[in-house]
Amino acid sequence: MGRITTRRSIVRVRGPNSTTRPDTLVVEEPLEIRVGGSPLAVTMRTPGHDVELAHGFLLTEGVISSVDDVASARYCDGVDDNGLNTYNVLDITLTVGIPPPQSGVERNFYTTSSCGVCGKASLDAVRLATVHSPAEDTTTVHVDVLATLPDRLRQSQKVFHSTGGLHAAALFDQYGQLLVLREDIGRHNAVDKVVGWAIAQHRIPCRGSILMVSGRASFELAQKAAMAGIPILAAVSAPSSLAVDLADETGLTLVGFLRGQNMNLYTHTHRVMQG
Amino acid sequence: MGRITTRRSIVRVRGPNSTTRPDTLVVEEPLEIRVGGSPLAVTMRTPGHDVELAHGFLLTEGVISSVDDVASARYCDGVDDNGLNTYNVLDITLTVGIPPPQSGVERNFYTTSSCGVCGKASLDAVRLATVHSPAEDTTTVHVDVLATLPDRLRQSQKVFHSTGGLHAAALFDQYGQLLVLREDIGRHNAVDKVVGWAIAQHRIPCRGSILMVSGRASFELAQKAAMAGIPILAAVSAPSSLAVDLADETGLTLVGFLRGQNMNLYTHTHRVMQG
Repeated sequence: MGRITTRRSIVRVRGPNSTTRPDTLVVEEPLEIRVGGSPLAVTMRTPGHDVELAHGFLLTEGVISSVDDVASARYCDGVDDNGLNTYNVLDITLTVGIPPPQSGVERNFYTTSSCGVCGKASLDAVRLATVHSPAEDTTTVHVDVLATLPDRLRQSQKVFHSTGGLHAAALFDQYGQLLVLREDIGRHNAVDKVVGWAIAQHRIPCRGSILMVSGRASFELAQKAAMAGIPILAAVSAPSSLAVDLADETGLTLVGFLRGQNMNLYTHTHRVMQG
Repeated sequence: MGRITTRRSIVRVRGPNSTTRPDTLVVEEPLEIRVGGSPLAVTMRTPGHDVELAHGFLLTEGVISSVDDVASARYCDGVDDNGLNTYNVLDITLTVGIPPPQSGVERNFYTTSSCGVCGKASLDAVRLATVHSPAEDTTTVHVDVLATLPDRLRQSQKVFHSTGGLHAAALFDQYGQLLVLREDIGRHNAVDKVVGWAIAQHRIPCRGSILMVSGRASFELAQKAAMAGIPILAAVSAPSSLAVDLADETGLTLVGFLRGQNMNLYTHTHRVMQG
């Protein structure tokens, strides 16, 4: 779509010197996700892989459980000042028999959980809805494999190199082979796009895989991993208390501060092999 | 409230060695903001300064314009499994005559914009709602002052040092004096808490001030700065395209990649003095 980055004239200050020069910015635009024509959520995202994003969002919110639950996805409405389609409204039609997401208060929770938000009621709901519990996954990974992931994540981040402004999420197998990497201005979106890719590949639940994220591990990312049946979540930075709690309860191995051979193991450490 | 950090036993891997030891985690918990008893938004936040957070959220969403618009704020409902108040539900009563936020589709936008989310309709609405346009602010700041801010932000981040897991937002005056700093697991929350502090101090619009944030500058943060009448937004990392667009249109000076004497000036560069 050509809208992942954009050019802009800026003033670059380097000590006492300043120059006016072009700079590359990462694009941020709203995507409204509709289900059966009804607005469900709006997320600020980097354009691209929008169908994956919507699929991943719907799966990690418990609305769908496989690609077969989606009948169609199409851009609709949304024109800019010149009457051109903005490609910022995506309408998902569910397969006949798949119940649409609940409205009312639940809808609020659905909506806001796109950005790391939920109340106690929805916390409980998520735990109940995890049909692909990571607890059953017997995958193990060697620390030497984990140690290679941050560098490989960074090397594969094409857009980050030009803008410095994107989060990345990637799925690796237990031997360290990269399966898919997605970048987005929102880290939850990057994960949703990865999960959406897995849905299209009929890889749900994502047994034997490692979800690597470029930033912190929040509750929401742990929740998305658990919903997709991913057994291991590894983050470059810190996890939150609620992420650790959720990982503990769902059987997810949570690795934080993963920087080369150094890392912290928070939960279900039996999956990480040394020696 | 003693819930900003928590302790947890982890396995610390350092090359071939691993040790089990206690670790400090940043606490992440949901806060449901209600207005007049009706749920408006739920955000995952670090507990503390919740009233500031709610005030800042309501102001930057255009619901209130000063502290006088709020009659009361109190924790309600929300008990945990032991029947204890979770302090995770805050009900705001608006002053008589202040219209409550709209419901329906608008409510969706309100809700989700807590996390960097909105549609075209709400983008337009925000631009209309900015009653404290930064464009009118004649504040200037010297690059030497800007150069000092990242270090001072980091030095003042108490919780970050122990957990590595928090975003920070701080308000400085044009001479570099720190007015307030708040940390939160959500960067939008950190900014809302700063704005909430300014509301309580009758400092809205925040003329003559610089909002410094520890991460990137998204559309949402630029929007919050503009809504609070802050003339200068400085970020350690990259801005997004939409943040630059909004800053351009609202008269906000946007500084990115602020790292010592090096920085990029994106919009309204006349406020930044050199030499």
